[in-house]
Amino acid sequence: MLIVKKFGGSSVANKERIFNVANRCIEDYKAGHDVVVVLSAMGDTTDDLIALAHTIDSNPKKRELDMLLTTGEQVSVALMAMAMQSLDVPAVSLNAFQVQMHSTARYGAARFKRIDTDRIRHELDSRKIVIVTGFQGINKYDDITTLGRGGSDTTAVALAAVLHADRCEIFTDVDGVYTADPRVVKNAMKLDEVTYDEMLELASLGAKVLHNRSVEMAKKYGVELVVRSSLNRSEGTVIKEKAKMEKMLITGVAADTNTARISVIGVEDKPGTAFRIFHTLAKNSINVDIILQSVGRDGTKDISFTVSEDDLQNALDILEEHKETLTIQQITCNPHVAKISVIGAGMMSNPGVAARMFESLYNSRININMISTSEIRITVLVDEKDVDKAMNAVHDGFIMTE
Amino acid sequence: MLIVKKFGGSSVANKERIFNVANRCIEDYKAGHDVVVVLSAMGDTTDDLIALAHTIDSNPKKRELDMLLTTGEQVSVALMAMAMQSLDVPAVSLNAFQVQMHSTARYGAARFKRIDTDRIRHELDSRKIVIVTGFQGINKYDDITTLGRGGSDTTAVALAAVLHADRCEIFTDVDGVYTADPRVVKNAMKLDEVTYDEMLELASLGAKVLHNRSVEMAKKYGVELVVRSSLNRSEGTVIKEKAKMEKMLITGVAADTNTARISVIGVEDKPGTAFRIFHTLAKNSINVDIILQSVGRDGTKDISFTVSEDDLQNALDILEEHKETLTIQQITCNPHVAKISVIGAGMMSNPGVAARMFESLYNSRININMISTSEIRITVLVDEKDVDKAMNAVHDGFIMTE
Repeated sequence: MLIVKKFGGSSVANKERIFNVANRCIEDYKAGHDVVVVLSAMGDTTDDLIALAHTIDSNPKKRELDMLLTTGEQVSVALMAMAMQSLDVPAVSLNAFQVQMHSTARYGAARFKRIDTDRIRHELDSRKIVIVTGFQGINKYDDITTLGRGGSDTTAVALAAVLHADRCEIFTDVDGVYTADPRVVKNAMKLDEVTYDEMLELASLGAKVLHNRSVEMAKKYGVELVVRSSLNRSEGTVIKEKAKMEKMLITGVAADTNTARISVIGVEDKPGTAFRIFHTLAKNSINVDIILQSVGRDGTKDISFTVSEDDLQNALDILEEHKETLTIQQITCNPHVAKISVIGAGMMSNPGVAARMFESLYNSRININMISTSEIRITVLVDEKDVDKAMNAVHDGFIMTE
Repeated sequence: MLIVKKFGGSSVANKERIFNVANRCIEDYKAGHDVVVVLSAMGDTTDDLIALAHTIDSNPKKRELDMLLTTGEQVSVALMAMAMQSLDVPAVSLNAFQVQMHSTARYGAARFKRIDTDRIRHELDSRKIVIVTGFQGINKYDDITTLGRGGSDTTAVALAAVLHADRCEIFTDVDGVYTADPRVVKNAMKLDEVTYDEMLELASLGAKVLHNRSVEMAKKYGVELVVRSSLNRSEGTVIKEKAKMEKMLITGVAADTNTARISVIGVEDKPGTAFRIFHTLAKNSINVDIILQSVGRDGTKDISFTVSEDDLQNALDILEEHKETLTIQQITCNPHVAKISVIGAGMMSNPGVAARMFESLYNSRININMISTSEIRITVLVDEKDVDKAMNAVHDGFIMTE
């Protein structure tokens, strides 16, 4: 069996943790498996290097920043190889040049284009554990790129895909994927399995276990992922195309407080108005999420939508600038809102999920501002102050009653 | 003009020094020259990384150690490129993979085999300052190697050779090459010029300004070196094939206290005895320096020689082991000796240099243990406690009387 195992920065933050990781990998190796390990930089190394760069230039060129940051993973893989060798297990560390991990040219946010497998295969064939730098690639100029935050997960999934690995394990500091954030919802439960689509909805709604890009790539190439803890032996959560038959209606409940509502009041009620507003925002790289349009009256209508809080001021400025051409009479906003979502592939074949969610919220006297749905998700907008209460109400309304 | 400039770790140890180096390079660039900069790791980075490796394994594999250590130079070149860019000067950092600096396979002590110039030429042609990682190469396995201590000097000279640079400047924390160590000999003077051969003799005798390998390579490829300070604007010392005509008889006086004397007593006085002794030591990688053989008597003879103090115990063990076959009756040693050498191409055409040296030592009542000479060097062995007095006596006897 070929297993790709990815460990984040906190899992290799010091000597003890490095040997802990080394031993877990060696177990699989001694069981006869081929093992490829993907590592992030130790602990806070990446942040420390960014801070170091900022002492030189507050806005360093991304090419040079990538050249700097990628040293972090190279340190991790070299130390891990030493640790395994000191335990008398053959191991070899490889960086993006050595593997030939080809990426797009864009520094700081590159994407993999093609990964050569010759070198890794050669090392596996000589029965070595292969330790690869996460987070980095090389572009067509032969320069080092980074994949952006969460990039090491993507490296692991990409390697699992090209090597046709039997398993790709993402080790983290939580036991797996939960039905809700355990710090907020006291009854949150660990899930044994979720589908790629459920995981994508969960991740995009603030469940920070896995980066969306890595889940998308896993889905595209059919790589079965396991999210598990580097600190204990818990089985973790399997992420795959179809989860088991007897599954819960709802996989999880997620909250996102990094959201703000904008309302544009009294715009002309004729075709193309909404398009022009959202086209103007999109041109300026502002992602709009839930949209609610009132019924027209007196030849005008009101449109409300949500953006991330980071984009709020920018969005308001742009709307103000184009107020005349977009026929907006008034702009209002509320940054103190939060999204609560229930996610589950099971709801596709089960009507009444929305009703049950609204009932749970009503029973807890929580007001719903806006509603948005996808095939496997229902999202409502509530006041930010109600978010914890709403999470618990919705979670227990679904998960605990099944 | 194409100029290669090399700066050591202390010259890039912090933000202020990085900008100091950046500005010195930019001066040459703005004067219209092509500038290639070779950097070591910042400050004590290399030692810190070695210490980090030793927390994992007291004797890490050299391949992985090289993988680890080379991150140090990559950090330096990335930060330097950022510093220059922040001063609005185009710059680009390159590591051994990007330049394609091919070396022998031997980790920790690799030697350059071939350096591609395409990438550097391309960057210079687009009027960038090119900043290259010192100390590192890649071998035929596509793995990272290091050149051993002093390796960044070698990188600079090698680049100057393949790029046919007009000048190769080695920046250090001293003003140049001195007639003797200024910390020991108060009348020591800075030299304007020395020949490669003189520099080689000086360096091998403990004048730690330049690593011998870099001087040998400079001599082989005719690269004119300049050793100068990164801290001031002093002109430094030029190292080249022939120094100027009107030169001093003696270029410098050097001392080496890392030496020990071994005597093997009563060995058979017949052909092949000395050969067998030194062959046995050479097979065990022990370098023997000065050799003195007594006149034979009663069919036996005594042989004395010096080794570095690091090799002393190893040499004694080997001799003891082969005592019988080497016909040695007794082995004695003295670690408390030092070599004093006078060096100068001028002595080739000037008899009487040795006599003048012995006179200086005699006048200071310093006893001479052993004597060794080359074409441009005379070395005597003295007691270690006399070394400073001997240095001053010999130095002033030559340099100050001319």
